[in-house]
Amino acid sequence: MIEIEVKVKADHPKAHHVLKKIGAVKLGVENQSDVYFAAPHRDFAKTDEALRIRSLNNQAVLTYKGPKLDGISKTREEFETPVDEETTIQILHALGFSEAGVVRKKREVFRSGEITVCLDIVEGLGEFLEVEIVADSEKELEASRAKLFELLKQFGAEEKDSIRISYLEMVLEKNRG
Amino acid sequence: MIEIEVKVKADHPKAHHVLKKIGAVKLGVENQSDVYFAAPHRDFAKTDEALRIRSLNNQAVLTYKGPKLDGISKTREEFETPVDEETTIQILHALGFSEAGVVRKKREVFRSGEITVCLDIVEGLGEFLEVEIVADSEKELEASRAKLFELLKQFGAEEKDSIRISYLEMVLEKNRG
Repeated sequence: MIEIEVKVKADHPKAHHVLKKIGAVKLGVENQSDVYFAAPHRDFAKTDEALRIRSLNNQAVLTYKGPKLDGISKTREEFETPVDEETTIQILHALGFSEAGVVRKKREVFRSGEITVCLDIVEGLGEFLEVEIVADSEKELEASRAKLFELLKQFGAEEKDSIRISYLEMVLEKNRG
Repeated sequence: MIEIEVKVKADHPKAHHVLKKIGAVKLGVENQSDVYFAAPHRDFAKTDEALRIRSLNNQAVLTYKGPKLDGISKTREEFETPVDEETTIQILHALGFSEAGVVRKKREVFRSGEITVCLDIVEGLGEFLEVEIVADSEKELEASRAKLFELLKQFGAEEKDSIRISYLEMVLEKNRG
């Protein structure tokens, strides 16, 4: 499974207006707390990988994200499994992984055709818009990315607005600054 | 949670007879398939750790076992979480973990007081008996171990019969030989 996503800064009241206009369906609201882990044997910041436990309404999911596959979108391989949060943290610690940072956000999720649209309010960072398509293979990458930018136009965003760094990187950068 | 266990070679027909005599309750039979992983950053054979996915009736559990805490029993720290088997294997591979070996066994589980008794038939290795107590802390270790060896006497086994190497080590040793 390949997740093709593009993230941009967005004014949420305006974005809500556009979503209504294009007939997007609201799927729900989630309060997500993401704990990111650093590996003992390689630097995920350099390899462009991520290992995360997301907790959400008493449910936790362990997610691995591989390096980005291209320069414009945030396309990458992604694997995830439901887990028990507490024991999974214990397992990761025992294996030498350590907590690298935490990202907390409120995410409103919408659906427009095959595209998932997320309006994220990220603690300490502000408002964002993320559009995503899930594809079976890399072959569909170009076509999917074109669809995402086509939709983003409606929100007044274009390719140059694409933010390639992750919320975690933004949080860590802010903490350093 | 600390798992205190002792494993010995056993003749199962004889063991069944003893279990009946002491009034042990049969809890069930499981066909377990265990895939063990090797870490990219340390040698689990040397650190005496184990990372395993056990699958059992379409359910999978990821388990980390820490180094043994003493010389006689197989006491060690253990953390486990239910997972999705396929994606967890993908996550572990992506992180650089590789499959070290597979142990398949049929396990009959009995309960005698606070002790769990397992009769294992391990593919390629034969018949074993494992007794186990789960304790909250290391303080109870001595007392728990004494209880296990007290019970093992009934099966004609004593401390010197305790097998400290794991089924995985036995399987790997056999494959080498």
